[in-house]
Formats: sequence, structure tokens, C-alpha cells
Amino acid sequence: MEQLKQRILTEGRALDANILLVDSFLNHQVDPALMRDIGAEFARVFAGHGANRVVTIESSGIAPALMTALAMDLPLVVLKKQPSRIVREDIWQTTVHSFTKNTKYELTLKRSFMPAGSRALLIDDFLASGEAALGVRTLLAQADATLCGIGIVIEKAFQPGSQRLAELGCKVHSLARIAAMGPDGICFVE
Amino acid sequence: MEQLKQRILTEGRALDANILLVDSFLNHQVDPALMRDIGAEFARVFAGHGANRVVTIESSGIAPALMTALAMDLPLVVLKKQPSRIVREDIWQTTVHSFTKNTKYELTLKRSFMPAGSRALLIDDFLASGEAALGVRTLLAQADATLCGIGIVIEKAFQPGSQRLAELGCKVHSLARIAAMGPDGICFVE
Repeated sequence: MEQLKQRILTEGRALDANILLVDSFLNHQVDPALMRDIGAEFARVFAGHGANRVVTIESSGIAPALMTALAMDLPLVVLKKQPSRIVREDIWQTTVHSFTKNTKYELTLKRSFMPAGSRALLIDDFLASGEAALGVRTLLAQADATLCGIGIVIEKAFQPGSQRLAELGCKVHSLARIAAMGPDGICFVE
Repeated sequence: MEQLKQRILTEGRALDANILLVDSFLNHQVDPALMRDIGAEFARVFAGHGANRVVTIESSGIAPALMTALAMDLPLVVLKKQPSRIVREDIWQTTVHSFTKNTKYELTLKRSFMPAGSRALLIDDFLASGEAALGVRTLLAQADATLCGIGIVIEKAFQPGSQRLAELGCKVHSLARIAAMGPDGICFVE
């Protein structure tokens, strides 16, 4: 997505080879018109995948996922990050390790929002190791629901997430794929 | 806002006199079309207040605030909740006590996203004691910015937030004002 790549090149800052700061348009300050265009693009890419829900993980996935859900006329389910496990019959949970932040959390979903047979499209801001998306896949499996596609705003293509998910049969589409980054700049795949 | 009140009446559940569960359309499962209509309504109400930014607090304020920012063609700034104070020259912080959750957090704003003289419209999902909104006001004052309006999706009008903010000269507009709630039902103001 050319518009997005240009914003990454002009406003993004690679703090090191792994951390990309895009807080001027994606996750601290947010550009609503860019989010709308991102939503329209995901709706186009994933039309025909039979999704009946969009899911994301709080909180920086919410903006692109909401716009995707609006464009596709689907409900959005925001998976919550609980600091610790809760035993309750009305929720599903699975543990996710965030390598970027070196933390873990319990990805949490109220069962009634994901009935058995649901087909969920995951939209998230970043893909790196794939841990979060794999957690979503595990959670959906608990609910007897299908992860029918994964839309990522920015993929760190030098990390294994995309390949791990593809090997499990997940269709991943990233709007910007970063091949490498550092103080000298940011390079995209292709 | 009639559409919103109907959703609260049909789907909301008052767990007690203070806690209202609206997780089927506002903060766990999110209805994107309702959020769009809420954004359009806030844009109408706050047209002419001279806002040049929309602000909200992560994470359940993001959906209505993003749609408001889109409708008003303004950037959205998502104030972050840090668990503890960070001393850094590029950020503003202030402590907020959440009475509902009995926790506190450091409301955090990168200085460059709120230049001196900014006029910010705060959009949030709930107003109760007003602590969060007062925190936003304090943070904006640090930045030499003005809180030029407060748009609330659901106000617990039996709590003092609205009055505290009005006494400080803040214009508050709530789309649904709850007078009382409990196991027997939910009553709106007026």
C-alpha cells in the first residue's frame, strides 16, 4: 500500500534493527483518514473469505480493525489483554508472550462473542514473531471458530511470524513489509 | 441519542448500582456502524468549538474517538496509560485514580503531538467521577493546550463527574445520561 509506505518512510523511525516508531500516525497519534483507507484495502483483500467477524488485540490494533469492520459491515471483537489468568466459565483465555516488550498477558475473549462456527478476520498493527496471531488462532480454536485471514498493517518481514503462520495454513496479507531497518533507513520487501 | 439509549436498554446489564456492562456493542464487541453514528453526532455537537485535535484514553475510548476524528477531519491522539511514572523530556504525565477499577495509572502524552495552543476535544466511553477527564485537563494544561469540549458516550449522571467538570468551565455533552440503574432496569435522565 503505497500511501502507507510513504508515511513509514517520511515519519517512521527505526530505533534499532527491531523497533520501528510510527507513533505519529498509527499508535499514539492516529491518522483517521489513513485508517479508513487501510480498512478499505483490507476489505478489498479479504472479500470472499467468508469472515463474519473482525478481531483485533487491544489497543493499537483497534483503529485499523474498526475501519476494516466498518468497511465490511461486520462486528468487531477486541480481544483483551488481562495481566493474569481468570477462571470463569464465560471466557476463553490463552497466554501470549510478547518478545518486543518482554512481557506476557492472557488474551481474553468472552465466549458469547465468538459462537462455534464463527469465521474471524484478524487485523493487527504489527507482525513480528507471530506470537500474538498464534495466540488468537489458539483462542479461536478453543471457541470452535476459524481464523480465516490475517491482515497486518506493518510486517517485520525479517522476523519469522509470517512464515510460521503460512505453515499453519493461515492467509496473511501485510500492507507494508519491512525487509530491514536501522539508523540508515527502512527498506521494504520488493 | 435515541439509537444508543435503545441499545443500552436492550443489551446493557447493570451489574450493580455502579457498573454497567455494555460489552456487546461498546468495549469488547464493538458495533462499527453505531460508532460511526456516534462520531457523526459528536462532530455535529462540537462543530464551531475550534478543536484541532481529538483526544481519548486507551483503550475503550478509541473506537468512538476515531470515528469522531474522522468525521471532523482531525488527528486523533490516544493518551496512553503507563503503569508507573517515566521521567523523559519528550512526554507529559499525570496520575489518574480509577475509582471504578480501584487502580491508578500515569496518563501519558508525547509532547510533540500537543503543541502549545492546541485545542483538544476529549471523547471517552464513560464519565463517572470525572477523574480521567480531570487528568486529561491537567495534562493539556501542562502542554499549554485547551480542553475545548468533552464528548461522552455514556454518563453515570448520578456520579459527580459532569458537575465537577462544568464547575471548571468544561463543556460536557453526553449521548446517554443514566439517572439510576440496578437489577430492575436502567433509567435515563429526562
